[in-house]
Amino acid sequence: MTPENEFEPVFHPRSIAVVGASNDITKFGGRTYASLKARRYQGRLYAVNPSVTEVGGDRAYARIWDIPEPVDMAIVVVAAPHVVRTLADCAEKGVRAVQILTAGFRESGSEEGARWEEQIAKIAKESGIRIVGPNCFGIYSPESALTVLPGPDFPSESGPVGLLAQSGGLTSFLVRRAMGLGIRFSKAVSYGNACDLNETDFLAYFGDDDRTRMVAAYIEGVRDGRRLFEVARSTSLRKPVFVWKGGLTELGSRAVASHTASLGGSQQIWQGFLRQTGVIPVVGIDEMIDLMVGFRHLPDFRGRRVSVVSGGGAITVAACDELDPAGLSLPEFSSRTQETIRALLPASGNTVGNPLDTGPPVFLLPTVKPILDAVAASDRIDAVIVQHEVGSHSPDFVEAAAQVIPSVREASAKPFLVTMPAPTTSSDAMEVERVRRQYREWYLERGIPVFDTLHRAVRALGAIIRYNEFLARHGSRRSF
Amino acid sequence: MTPENEFEPVFHPRSIAVVGASNDITKFGGRTYASLKARRYQGRLYAVNPSVTEVGGDRAYARIWDIPEPVDMAIVVVAAPHVVRTLADCAEKGVRAVQILTAGFRESGSEEGARWEEQIAKIAKESGIRIVGPNCFGIYSPESALTVLPGPDFPSESGPVGLLAQSGGLTSFLVRRAMGLGIRFSKAVSYGNACDLNETDFLAYFGDDDRTRMVAAYIEGVRDGRRLFEVARSTSLRKPVFVWKGGLTELGSRAVASHTASLGGSQQIWQGFLRQTGVIPVVGIDEMIDLMVGFRHLPDFRGRRVSVVSGGGAITVAACDELDPAGLSLPEFSSRTQETIRALLPASGNTVGNPLDTGPPVFLLPTVKPILDAVAASDRIDAVIVQHEVGSHSPDFVEAAAQVIPSVREASAKPFLVTMPAPTTSSDAMEVERVRRQYREWYLERGIPVFDTLHRAVRALGAIIRYNEFLARHGSRRSF
Repeated sequence: MTPENEFEPVFHPRSIAVVGASNDITKFGGRTYASLKARRYQGRLYAVNPSVTEVGGDRAYARIWDIPEPVDMAIVVVAAPHVVRTLADCAEKGVRAVQILTAGFRESGSEEGARWEEQIAKIAKESGIRIVGPNCFGIYSPESALTVLPGPDFPSESGPVGLLAQSGGLTSFLVRRAMGLGIRFSKAVSYGNACDLNETDFLAYFGDDDRTRMVAAYIEGVRDGRRLFEVARSTSLRKPVFVWKGGLTELGSRAVASHTASLGGSQQIWQGFLRQTGVIPVVGIDEMIDLMVGFRHLPDFRGRRVSVVSGGGAITVAACDELDPAGLSLPEFSSRTQETIRALLPASGNTVGNPLDTGPPVFLLPTVKPILDAVAASDRIDAVIVQHEVGSHSPDFVEAAAQVIPSVREASAKPFLVTMPAPTTSSDAMEVERVRRQYREWYLERGIPVFDTLHRAVRALGAIIRYNEFLARHGSRRSF
Repeated sequence: MTPENEFEPVFHPRSIAVVGASNDITKFGGRTYASLKARRYQGRLYAVNPSVTEVGGDRAYARIWDIPEPVDMAIVVVAAPHVVRTLADCAEKGVRAVQILTAGFRESGSEEGARWEEQIAKIAKESGIRIVGPNCFGIYSPESALTVLPGPDFPSESGPVGLLAQSGGLTSFLVRRAMGLGIRFSKAVSYGNACDLNETDFLAYFGDDDRTRMVAAYIEGVRDGRRLFEVARSTSLRKPVFVWKGGLTELGSRAVASHTASLGGSQQIWQGFLRQTGVIPVVGIDEMIDLMVGFRHLPDFRGRRVSVVSGGGAITVAACDELDPAGLSLPEFSSRTQETIRALLPASGNTVGNPLDTGPPVFLLPTVKPILDAVAASDRIDAVIVQHEVGSHSPDFVEAAAQVIPSVREASAKPFLVTMPAPTTSSDAMEVERVRRQYREWYLERGIPVFDTLHRAVRALGAIIRYNEFLARHGSRRSF
C-alpha cells in the first residue's frame, strides 16, 4: 500500500506549476491556471510556457527548472509529443507529483503514444514522482483549491464522499449532479490511463482517510487484481465502497480499450470479486448518486419493516414489487393504528393498509400530517417512505407543506425517506420543477434523503441493508 | 369482443350528466363539471345535485330522470352508499355509459363495498349500461373534451397513443409527463376496479381504432386470462402493445388487492404470456414514456449497426455495455471515414473509434457538425446516437447548436437519436434545465427522439427491434 504521506503532494501540494499555462481560457492550460487563481489556491502558483512572458498577469517561466523555488506538483497540459521531455524536466526539478491531463497515449492505439506512456512510467518509477493520468481531468481536492478541468465552480467545502473515476467527464458530471443534492467530496480523482497511480492506490488512500466515509468508484480496467481484491476487502470492512465497473461486455470492453487503454474483464470474475469483498455493485450515474444520498443520511439503515405512504395506488403497487426482492417488508398496522388512521382519512375511497394510499395524487401534505404521525408511532414500523408529488401550489402552501415530514420525523425519531418524481417535462413548466428541487433541498438539509422514484429509493435501501449485513457477518463496523 | 359502437357513448358521448356536480371545485363533482365546461364540451351538459339549484351558473337537476332530454353518459361522483341507487336511476333514464369515479367498493375490503359493487355490475348487465370504474379517474378523450379527474389542462389535440391504466393517479401522471415530450393520446382510460369494462375490452377497442398506433397499459389484475391472451396477440400483430404489470411479487400482489381489488398473478405465467403474445413488457413510468417516444419517432427501427458519438468516454463505455445485450452492434469505421474524422478532431486526446469520443464533456455542437456528417455518411452505420450534454451557453450558441443534428440528419436521411442527461439538480440552476428541455422540444418537433440517458435510449431501441422481429416472424406488419 502506498504510504499516505506519498499522497501529500498529490492532494495537498504546497506549490504548483502549470506546464502549458495559457492566456486563452478555452484551452486546458488557460482554464486550469485561471481556475486555480479563481479558487484562491493558497500555495505558490507558477505558469510555465516558453511562448509567452506572462499568464493572467503573472510571470511565465520558459521551463520548469527556471522556477527559483521548489515545486510540489506539476499540472501538465502540453501536447502529447512534448510530455516525456516535460516529465524529465519535472524529475530534474524535484517535482513530487504530476497530473498529466494531456491525452494521445496508449488509449490512442498508436505505437508512439504507447511508447511515450512507457517512457513516462519509467521516469516516474526512477524519480519517485507520482503521476495521475495521462488522459484525465485530474484532481478535485476542495481543501487545497485543486479542481478537475471542467469544475472551476465546484464547492470549496469538503464532504464524506471519496470519488475515483477513470473518466474525467464522468467525474465532473457526478460531482455536479451531487452538488445540488447536498453531497460534498473529500476528494474526487479522474485518473485516466493510470500509468502510475491506479484504482487500487486511490482506494487505499480513501480507505485510510478519516474524512472519507464512503468510496464511489467508476473503474474500467484493473491493473493488479490480487492487490485490488485485498484493498477492496479491507476498505469495505471499514466503509462502504460502491463500484460501477465499465466494460463487462464484449462491446463495452472494446470501448474501454479506446477510452483508457484498459482491459474490461469478465462478468463472472467480477461477480466473484463482489461476493468476497463486500464491494457494492452499481450501474449508472443515477444509482451512484442514490447511494451517496442514502449512505449519507441513513448509514445504519437496518429496519426492514417499512411503511409506504402515497397518494395514488399504482406507484405504491410498483414499490411493493420492488420491496419484495430488496428484502423489505410491509407489516400490517395494528387495529388501533388502523382505527386512528381511518378516522383521519376522507370518507371514502381509501384503504387503511400498508402501503397506505391517502387518496389524491397530488399530495396535500398538511392534511396528512396526523396520518404520518400515526404511521410513525406504530411499533411495527422501522421506517417510513413517503411519496411526495409536487404540483402547482401557492408559496404559502409550499412552505407549510415542507414542514410536515421534518416535524413528524423529529417527533417520532424514525427514519423517513421521501420520493419525489418529476411531474413535468416541458420548458414552459419550470416553476413546478423549481419547487420540486426546493422541497428536495429542504428535506436534504434536514437529514431526510430524497429519491426521484420509489424504485430508486428501494434499490438504495436494499444496498445499504446488504452492506450492513456484510459488516455484521464479519463482526466489523464502519470506521465513522 | 365488444363491438366498437358500444364504445361510442363511452368515448364520444353526445350528452353528459354529472351526478354529484358541485360548485365547490375542490370536490370531484365540482372539478369534473368545471373542467367539461372549460374544455368546451360540445354536447349537452347537465348538472345533477338535489342540494343546490344551480352549478356553475347552470340549472341543477335533483335526479337524473328530471333531465328532459336523453343522456348518453353519466359521470357519477356521489358517495359510495348512493351509487347503486344512482345507477338504477341511470338505467331507468336510458343512460348508455357511466363513469363511476367514487371509491369505497371492493378495494376497501369491506363487505358492504363488495356488495355494492356486485349490485352495480348486475344493473350494468341487465340494463346494457357500460361502466368505467368504480374507483377510477375516468376517461381522457381529447376529441370529445372528456378528461380524467386531475387533467383539466390536458391537451385538446389527439395523438397516436392509446393508454389504459388501472390507476387514475398513474394515468394522469403519464399523460402529464408525456405532454412535454410531444406525445399525444387517442384516449387514456383509468378503469379502476373494472366491474364491467376491463383491460381486455379497452385493449380490443384500441386494437380496432385506426387512430391508435400503439397501446400502453398498466394492468394490476386480469379478469379473463384466455380472452386477454387472444386480444393481446391479435392486437400485437397490428400495433405495438406495451404493458407494465403490477403485483407480480407477493407484496405487490397484496398492494394490488387493496388498490383495485385485483389478483396480481405470477411471474411465470406472465413470462409465458409475453413470449406468446408479442406484448412488450415494461417496468415503471420512465420505460413507458421512452417507448412512446421511441415508437412514435422510430416505429420501423431495425438498423442494428449504430454509432455512438459523445464527448466523454465513460458514458460511451456504459452505452456499449448496454448495446451488447440489446443486440446492437458498433461497427468500426472504414479507414476512409476514420481519416476524414481524424482530420476534423482536435490534435490530441481523441480516438477515431466507434463509439466516437469527440473530446470535451460539454458537447460543443457546431464544431462537431462535420464529424457527424462523416459518421452519418458511413455505409457501415444504420443509425447514430448522439450524447448531447447541455451546459451554460449564450442564447446564440444554443440556437446554433440546436440546428446541427437536425441538419445532419436531413442530409443523411439516417435515424438520429439524442441522449441528454440532466446536468444539474439544484433549485438555483434552473436555466440549464430550461435550456435542456428546449433543446429536447426542438429535436422532438423535428422527429428526433430524445432520451434522458444512453441506457434508456438503448433499452427502448432494443424493445422496438424485438417487436419488429416478432412482426416479421409472423409475416405481419403494423396496421399504420
